[in-house]
Amino acid sequence: MPENFELMNARGVRDFLPEEALARQKAMDTIRSVFEAYGYSPLETPAIEREDVLTAKFTGGAEIMNEIFKVEDQGGRELALRYDLTVPLSKVVGMNPNLPKPFKRYQMQPVWRDGPVKLGRFREFMQCDADIVGTKSMLADAEILAIAAEVFDRLGLSVVIKVNNRKLMNGILDYAGIKENKMEAILAIDKLEKFGTEAVEKELAENGIGKKETEAVLKVMSVKGRNDEILEKLGTMLKSDEGKEGTKELKELLGYCETMDVEVKLDVSLARGLEYYTGPVYEVFLKSSKISSSVAGGGRYDKMIGMFIGRGEYPATGISFGVEPIFEALKEKGIAAPKTNTQVLVIPIGTLKEALPIARKLRGQGIRTEIDIMDRGISANLNYANSLGIPYVVFFGNEEMKQNKVKLRDMKSGKEKLIEAEKAGQEITT
Amino acid sequence: MPENFELMNARGVRDFLPEEALARQKAMDTIRSVFEAYGYSPLETPAIEREDVLTAKFTGGAEIMNEIFKVEDQGGRELALRYDLTVPLSKVVGMNPNLPKPFKRYQMQPVWRDGPVKLGRFREFMQCDADIVGTKSMLADAEILAIAAEVFDRLGLSVVIKVNNRKLMNGILDYAGIKENKMEAILAIDKLEKFGTEAVEKELAENGIGKKETEAVLKVMSVKGRNDEILEKLGTMLKSDEGKEGTKELKELLGYCETMDVEVKLDVSLARGLEYYTGPVYEVFLKSSKISSSVAGGGRYDKMIGMFIGRGEYPATGISFGVEPIFEALKEKGIAAPKTNTQVLVIPIGTLKEALPIARKLRGQGIRTEIDIMDRGISANLNYANSLGIPYVVFFGNEEMKQNKVKLRDMKSGKEKLIEAEKAGQEITT
Repeated sequence: MPENFELMNARGVRDFLPEEALARQKAMDTIRSVFEAYGYSPLETPAIEREDVLTAKFTGGAEIMNEIFKVEDQGGRELALRYDLTVPLSKVVGMNPNLPKPFKRYQMQPVWRDGPVKLGRFREFMQCDADIVGTKSMLADAEILAIAAEVFDRLGLSVVIKVNNRKLMNGILDYAGIKENKMEAILAIDKLEKFGTEAVEKELAENGIGKKETEAVLKVMSVKGRNDEILEKLGTMLKSDEGKEGTKELKELLGYCETMDVEVKLDVSLARGLEYYTGPVYEVFLKSSKISSSVAGGGRYDKMIGMFIGRGEYPATGISFGVEPIFEALKEKGIAAPKTNTQVLVIPIGTLKEALPIARKLRGQGIRTEIDIMDRGISANLNYANSLGIPYVVFFGNEEMKQNKVKLRDMKSGKEKLIEAEKAGQEITT
Repeated sequence: MPENFELMNARGVRDFLPEEALARQKAMDTIRSVFEAYGYSPLETPAIEREDVLTAKFTGGAEIMNEIFKVEDQGGRELALRYDLTVPLSKVVGMNPNLPKPFKRYQMQPVWRDGPVKLGRFREFMQCDADIVGTKSMLADAEILAIAAEVFDRLGLSVVIKVNNRKLMNGILDYAGIKENKMEAILAIDKLEKFGTEAVEKELAENGIGKKETEAVLKVMSVKGRNDEILEKLGTMLKSDEGKEGTKELKELLGYCETMDVEVKLDVSLARGLEYYTGPVYEVFLKSSKISSSVAGGGRYDKMIGMFIGRGEYPATGISFGVEPIFEALKEKGIAAPKTNTQVLVIPIGTLKEALPIARKLRGQGIRTEIDIMDRGISANLNYANSLGIPYVVFFGNEEMKQNKVKLRDMKSGKEKLIEAEKAGQEITT
């Protein structure tokens, strides 16, 4: 190896070799197909954006700002790599005021964050977002939840979809008499499910919330039951305008979910980290999995885009699917993609010139076909097919040529058949 | 707008709004389907690589080195954005010595170059590469050319596939007695087709090539005819070992192309810019188009990977498709993708609760279905469907509900039908 460099990857980024790339592609194709089934259209934005755009007020929040990868061009322009897909969406909405409303877009692109590298956390990772810009209707939120349900259904993963509402949370703070450090209080409450009551009490105290207020919060949190039972009890407890509005929005949202046959679970402690949410929030968790992090999450952010671009009202709601935990979950469940998409390897035995048209014929039948280009022996070719998991091989030697047939071998069963090339193709596709 | 930033894109990068994103996606899906039809598997590598890896010897060449976007992480590590897909491939081959051979991979990812921004040149652009690592066989090169032919056939673009061979070019230099500045001479000859004889003469002279040598070069270049006729004449002219080897390789390659029914045109002036090519080179141009830049190009580079990773022999050949000129060509020919993939918009008329299951049923039939989430009137919905080019709408009001039917409207013809929801679905798909 040359002395001047080490052949290795940058910290926190990965190569995806074919097997893994295929599995990821398959999962992403599934997500894309659901987005399109609901009438969402793709948007692509550049990896490189102006740094002032990415770090403008009302965007990602302080923690993310510290993790921005900065780039500079030769003209000395201050640039950076995108860290999410919501700021680029806001930018596009701002730069294209005539987009038809609702603007229902999906976006599946990598993002970069220069954060600590831990198990399952990377510096370059894929995000898959679907958002609706232009309507305040709870029906939009319900549609986002329907998409979430269908994505995980098609992926074959069992999940719980948790929902809550930021207005309701504010109503809970009103009920408890918490008037300061509201966002900090909400973030503390968000930890209830994961870390338990004591952790919440401790964090509330750290933020100057008194004992009485904390008790009131925990009283609301102790309300259990079916979604409608919880909502009914909260309806009698929360008297502030925001609390009432939150209850109303949730009732409406849950009603639509029922009509659309989307099962969700109301969790009044759920907040999600970002400050910009204004209404429903949702987060999706795997059932019976070792993976405890959420596999998707989102919510309504009615003010962010308008404040970011400095004009107009752009109510919006959306969800982000975490490709990395989803992919880990698929591996955990053994829902693997094949090692290759290739369906058959053609092995000429001294018949290359005549075998090439056979490979061509198979491809014409829509079969993904390889032909030996190494001029190797039969056993080397069988090893190659085995190592990649190619399900069929076709032998073509002088004997087969004479009979105008091919020998098709099913690599799994080891069974061989002497048949016409076209019939081999039919056999492979069925 | 807040005073602290301008809402605009970084220089030389672009957003792709749905219409354009869909068209690009469609073209890339077509390319991907051909790669997979020939048994190539996907590889994904990170955008961010170590700078020392990207700038190591034997990689991109001096011009590209000046155009690298540098990135630094918080640990002060020197990183950069990839500028091509060949260096990442070489890195992966070096880091994974046990990959089955041949390693047939495709890769479709953006690359970044901080170069001058001109018409049709961008700082972030997509590359689609297919390469075979591990065999010197001309059959591998022929397969790459077959892939090129099939990609443009499936895209509906007429092209000329030009081929040449670097060994043959060296043989031409031997014939002309050029012993120094060989690479400069090759790059000068490469300009013959585009800029004519005088430009070549001038550039050869600038590189210290004498008149006699230049005349000899131009004599070889004046050999015209069918591929086999040119090869035959060159066979009698070129006597050096490399010249003979080049002729032999070309004969073999053209033979395979004929067997595989791939039409190519031998162009003895074709060189391609990169220094690392060692055998066949190929470049694809559009027929009858205003776009004169090539839409794909590549060649054999038997030494680059081995030298880069500092060990072993890794013969390789491959092609890179230029998504940007391909996409421009599709636009030029009017081969456009639809503005949306959505097939139908469901318009409830005071029947939202009952219309939601209809939308669901249509999606269950595999139809990409939107439903009005804005609670808008009929004409606003029709305008929306028109603006996006959604081909069908379904009206569902009280009258339809009573009859357990829907009103399906073909947006193109304006014709309406009162039919069962399921039949509407069948109508939409046919």
